Amino acid sequence: MSESTHLHHDHAATPSPAAFRLARAEGNERLRGSGELFESFFALDAAAYQAGALPVTTKELLGLVVSVMKDCEECVYYHLERCDEEGVGRDEVLETLQIALVAGGSVTVPLLRRAMSFMSQLPRLGAS
Amino acid sequence: MSESTHLHHDHAATPSPAAFRLARAEGNERLRGSGELFESFFALDAAAYQAGALPVTTKELLGLVVSVMKDCEECVYYHLERCDEEGVGRDEVLETLQIALVAGGSVTVPLLRRAMSFMSQLPRLGAS
Amino acid sequence: MSESTHLHHDHAATPSPAAFRLARAEGNERLRGSGELFESFFALDAAAYQAGALPVTTKELLGLVVSVMKDCEECVYYHLERCDEEGVGRDEVLETLQIALVAGGSVTVPLLRRAMSFMSQLPRLGAS
Amino acid sequence: MSESTHLHHDHAATPSPAAFRLARAEGNERLRGSGELFESFFALDAAAYQAGALPVTTKELLGLVVSVMKDCEECVYYHLERCDEEGVGRDEVLETLQIALVAGGSVTVPLLRRAMSFMSQLPRLGAS
Amino acid sequence: MSESTHLHHDHAATPSPAAFRLARAEGNERLRGSGELFESFFALDAAAYQAGALPVTTKELLGLVVSVMKDCEECVYYHLERCDEEGVGRDEVLETLQIALVAGGSVTVPLLRRAMSFMSQLPRLGAS
Amino acid sequence: MSESTHLHHDHAATPSPAAFRLARAEGNERLRGSGELFESFFALDAAAYQAGALPVTTKELLGLVVSVMKDCEECVYYHLERCDEEGVGRDEVLETLQIALVAGGSVTVPLLRRAMSFMSQLPRLGAS
Repeated sequence: MSESTHLHHDHAATPSPAAFRLARAEGNERLRGSGELFESFFALDAAAYQAGALPVTTKELLGLVVSVMKDCEECVYYHLERCDEEGVGRDEVLETLQIALVAGGSVTVPLLRRAMSFMSQLPRLGAS
Repeated sequence: MSESTHLHHDHAATPSPAAFRLARAEGNERLRGSGELFESFFALDAAAYQAGALPVTTKELLGLVVSVMKDCEECVYYHLERCDEEGVGRDEVLETLQIALVAGGSVTVPLLRRAMSFMSQLPRLGAS
Repeated sequence: MSESTHLHHDHAATPSPAAFRLARAEGNERLRGSGELFESFFALDAAAYQAGALPVTTKELLGLVVSVMKDCEECVYYHLERCDEEGVGRDEVLETLQIALVAGGSVTVPLLRRAMSFMSQLPRLGAS
Repeated sequence: MSESTHLHHDHAATPSPAAFRLARAEGNERLRGSGELFESFFALDAAAYQAGALPVTTKELLGLVVSVMKDCEECVYYHLERCDEEGVGRDEVLETLQIALVAGGSVTVPLLRRAMSFMSQLPRLGAS
Repeated sequence: MSESTHLHHDHAATPSPAAFRLARAEGNERLRGSGELFESFFALDAAAYQAGALPVTTKELLGLVVSVMKDCEECVYYHLERCDEEGVGRDEVLETLQIALVAGGSVTVPLLRRAMSFMSQLPRLGAS
Repeated sequence: MSESTHLHHDHAATPSPAAFRLARAEGNERLRGSGELFESFFALDAAAYQAGALPVTTKELLGLVVSVMKDCEECVYYHLERCDEEGVGRDEVLETLQIALVAGGSVTVPLLRRAMSFMSQLPRLGAS
């Protein structure tokens, strides 16, 4: 492999779910250890996604659409993983991404391409 | 009423749902009449919110959270009205706004204040 | 007119071009008088829109589409006025707004409604 | 005053500090009463601006620049008021707005015009 | 090549046009196959960039400036390629990027660096 | 190392400060050579961060928080480096990032993870 090749990351490539989970966990751990306010914010974030009047599945779809709208690539991967764990159906995810596309326009397309690529690696959503 | 007063719109005030509906309808009509592409886009937007794997209620909550994240005040009012029409519960709306707040941070607060004010004027969500 | 009415600004209403021009000029004057860096920035901004390899008309359309994408209402009005002054055709403006809509999605619609409303007040673009 | 006039809010006008404070307080009160998560978020937000390694004055300038970058008009007014209360100098505020302008570009100008207009109404920053 | 090196993608590096085209085409194909709405959106997007009152070259420059403003790296590469194919001049591209810089401020600089790097690899724009 | 592996850049990895500095300098040089307006903009940007009523350290923290709010990864690295050079304390940086988190919400977390990772490589901020 040439020097010049390895410097160019593939712009359609996405991390493996396992690699992503590990890197995310390490990074969050570092933040949590950097001050009480970070710790409190993470707790608040977790609370917002707990089941309440809305089920966890709906909340994860809300988190997913938010992540696309804010162009937050790693947030998209995280909520796709959570959707997979909670048994959200593939069609439900696709309809959510369609709302993101119509609401956010063509500038969301590159992130939607990555979302589809990441989703294809997930045990349930990738198999369906 | 003094000249200087009426120039300052109240930054917490929100339009009445009736006035908003009328102004929005007129503006959309004008856009629709300004080229086929506008018309096609509106059709696509409507299609994205039709019932499918996800019920209309969930899609309207997706539209609501998107609107807060993109700081689109009139989009927020529109989706709150649609939630009201579709019988979405007040607690479901509030949990959706909480996800918006945690995901989008304190800069979403002014729009959340307006959302609450507008919601208080809606027949069902305002009464509950 | 009741107190409660005048506090609610009409969300489809747009300023008159004359009122907008005056308020904008006063505000810019105040910024220019507040430090050399403001003055220099305004000069740089003016330079970017001068005729060069691209004609002024194309540059004003670039400024217009940028303004929609950044949800900058007053920037939209300004570039519409400049388009009007430079004799840009109504169809050219509409095609530019269509690109903004497809690129930025449905969250751009409220600002596009205002753009249409403001444009209808302009001497050339409003008459055509 | 004609009907058509009062519907057009002056796009360079800003609320009076007193009116703004009242509307903001009422809106925040409503949010705080709408669920524990809102209350917790407000507490976290307040904690972030407490004196620590950085003095309150610097933190308010950080809040101000953030508010311009996120195009949050009411956030700008709030942090200008806090700067005024904490005795931040006018030149310090102006240099902060200059960083916002250079970092965020010409699309920040309309909000900077409003910031200057609001600031002129503040007891200390407006007098200097 | 060490493990630690290959994990760090070069932050100034850009994909080769050929690799980018391939990855983009595959990703879009996947989206198109995931629901009628995606297909319809792509058709609408293509329609917006067809020649009309404005020539294709101007529309591609509009697409380019939009892409910088929305910080959409792959959109920038796509519209640069289209500009290259349509024979847009290098100076026209540079003046468009200058408007993006002044309008969007210094936070656009990293993407402009990548745009310049990608452009240098294009057959016409890179040679001039 | 497999082909498929090296295409996936580690989403928590950050460039080394030395590699980043080099790539950034080369890219900026290319922009500066592409037109007078780029050159003038860089000069204006440099002027905004000069010591004035506010010390350089405060201005670099303003630049840092702006960079997080605009999701500008390379801007974050640049201002962290400048903070390191100017002797800004680690706690001052952390409090600035906390304001960014509360103001911008959970969608800023991925960039904050990278900021922490990059900071750990800096001579002063990484050692403390």
